Amino acid sequence: MYYPAPIAKLIESYMRLPGIGAKTAARLAFFTLDMREEDVNDFAKALISVKRDLHFCAICGNIAESETCTICQDTSRDKSQVLVVEEPKDVISMEKMREYKGQYHVLHGVISPMDGTGPDDINITSLIQRLHNDEIKEVIIATNATTEGEATAMYLSKLIKPAGIKVTRLAHGLSVGSDIEYADEITLLKAVEGRREM
Amino acid sequence: MYYPAPIAKLIESYMRLPGIGAKTAARLAFFTLDMREEDVNDFAKALISVKRDLHFCAICGNIAESETCTICQDTSRDKSQVLVVEEPKDVISMEKMREYKGQYHVLHGVISPMDGTGPDDINITSLIQRLHNDEIKEVIIATNATTEGEATAMYLSKLIKPAGIKVTRLAHGLSVGSDIEYADEITLLKAVEGRREM
Repeated sequence: MYYPAPIAKLIESYMRLPGIGAKTAARLAFFTLDMREEDVNDFAKALISVKRDLHFCAICGNIAESETCTICQDTSRDKSQVLVVEEPKDVISMEKMREYKGQYHVLHGVISPMDGTGPDDINITSLIQRLHNDEIKEVIIATNATTEGEATAMYLSKLIKPAGIKVTRLAHGLSVGSDIEYADEITLLKAVEGRREM
Repeated sequence: MYYPAPIAKLIESYMRLPGIGAKTAARLAFFTLDMREEDVNDFAKALISVKRDLHFCAICGNIAESETCTICQDTSRDKSQVLVVEEPKDVISMEKMREYKGQYHVLHGVISPMDGTGPDDINITSLIQRLHNDEIKEVIIATNATTEGEATAMYLSKLIKPAGIKVTRLAHGLSVGSDIEYADEITLLKAVEGRREM
């Protein structure tokens, strides 16, 4: 006898989550056994609901509860700026800032030849279409500061600039509250290059 | 706009799990959104099943798919030994060892005055009843090597010994494969005290 079948199945499901190995999955499964039935039912319903009730916005690719997302539906937002991010969660990070009032475009990935992801595998075509139709004046590229994120930013910039649209990239530099002592050389170099007059 | 409602609910559920904070819960929720629908449905079913299909064994308190657990049902196992553990998962750790062939008793907790858990709050009464009725010769106390685990072991020992039943406790000492250099003083003391002739 190892695990009873229902526990074994739950362990298997927990192990599909990122960063959860066999030991943690077993711990979570036994914890679930001790949880209130109500909370476990809510958990199961929330899982189902996330797949059933959420879609990707037909315009920008962000998470949406209807055909288009709340941001694309909001007529008070600036239509002249589009901020391009890798994933829907990046939209939420940006919204938490409470400063940006333009549109978004979610790529759902980055160009990564190593992983076999080319420009056609991510949500670029619909971005280009939006640029043709809309009154967009600036595209702000906010892909991650990784090799793939930079490569994707470069690709998009070369693609969009010829259409006469301004393309910008988020600034690189020191994190607010960080020590220079602990910053890596490349971040420090970018911070010096991007220095601003006081 | 922060999180869409279905995502917010799922984050809340993930946060109820031990060791999962707001950031990890959000990461898991977005990961769930990208999972195959089939896998998410399996996950939800496994959660429900663990609460619906598993009970605690009427004899020993271990996890059981029917009224009694597979170990209590197994007539080939030694009825003269009972190994007492804190939680059902400890039974599984012991069974993985593949050496112990006796019975178990699961306390579902430890005596902990700090947390307000007294002897009546854990599964001790049914253990004493088993000792009266059965042909038990030895009780092996395998509570954790924590303050509460030791206190519970002490309490049980004082309770059971007068009935003329042998009470033993798992050995304390160095973990197999560990360096003496990294062992704490108390473990080292226990290892010296418990030294055996070669």
